[in-house]
Amino acid sequence: MKQALLEARKAVQQGEVPIGAVVVWQNQIIARAHNQTEILNDVTAHAEMLAITAASSTLGGKYLTECTIYVTVEPCLMCAGALAWAQIGKIVYATKDEKRGFQLFTSNALHPKTQLIKGPLEEECATLMKEFFKAKRR
Amino acid sequence: MKQALLEARKAVQQGEVPIGAVVVWQNQIIARAHNQTEILNDVTAHAEMLAITAASSTLGGKYLTECTIYVTVEPCLMCAGALAWAQIGKIVYATKDEKRGFQLFTSNALHPKTQLIKGPLEEECATLMKEFFKAKRR
Repeated sequence: MKQALLEARKAVQQGEVPIGAVVVWQNQIIARAHNQTEILNDVTAHAEMLAITAASSTLGGKYLTECTIYVTVEPCLMCAGALAWAQIGKIVYATKDEKRGFQLFTSNALHPKTQLIKGPLEEECATLMKEFFKAKRR
Repeated sequence: MKQALLEARKAVQQGEVPIGAVVVWQNQIIARAHNQTEILNDVTAHAEMLAITAASSTLGGKYLTECTIYVTVEPCLMCAGALAWAQIGKIVYATKDEKRGFQLFTSNALHPKTQLIKGPLEEECATLMKEFFKAKRR
């Protein structure tokens, strides 16, 4: 999760919503990404989406059943749907998204075999988001 | 919708799930795409996702409030989530997806201003899907 937080911090520096994600397979990081919706001018460029695409490319297969994604903020509906298609093994997120988190909409978005876990660094990841939006509103 | 169906037929020829989408803005098609999850080895490469990315690129903005997407099959949760982020003006789909359609999971996935309409060519679009999966099971 520390690596995902590093990714989120990169996002801030680029004026992007500070969310980062890494994908781990066999104790190795095989993909890392942060939100790039502004620079790519594309709403689909969330950290998780870019990380899924990169991990699939690294592994040479579109299913990520043996992988864990660490993400600083609870995935939205789009990202949860993508993680379901990828049949990701485990999702670890640091802080809930009280407005757009997928769990606000449905309890069965994910693949039945996917584990969903609330992980560490909640305060750090949440604070990064709050400060980003506070600064934007100024 | 005829153009979306043409896209879906291209998908079949490439061994992809036959779903096609086009995005229309000011009576012009500004993006067209079909499912490419196999060739790109990427679960995120649904027709709608590729069409959103292409339309945003054409318009030079990530919001598609003035656009209509025509898609041969009801979007899944991932694509509905992406269309929500894009604040798409209107979604016209030909046939329901009885297993993965987003409406099975939640009634408020979309942006409140997005119109959702059941469009024409239901039978053609549904038949294409059924025949594809029947052939796959053989």
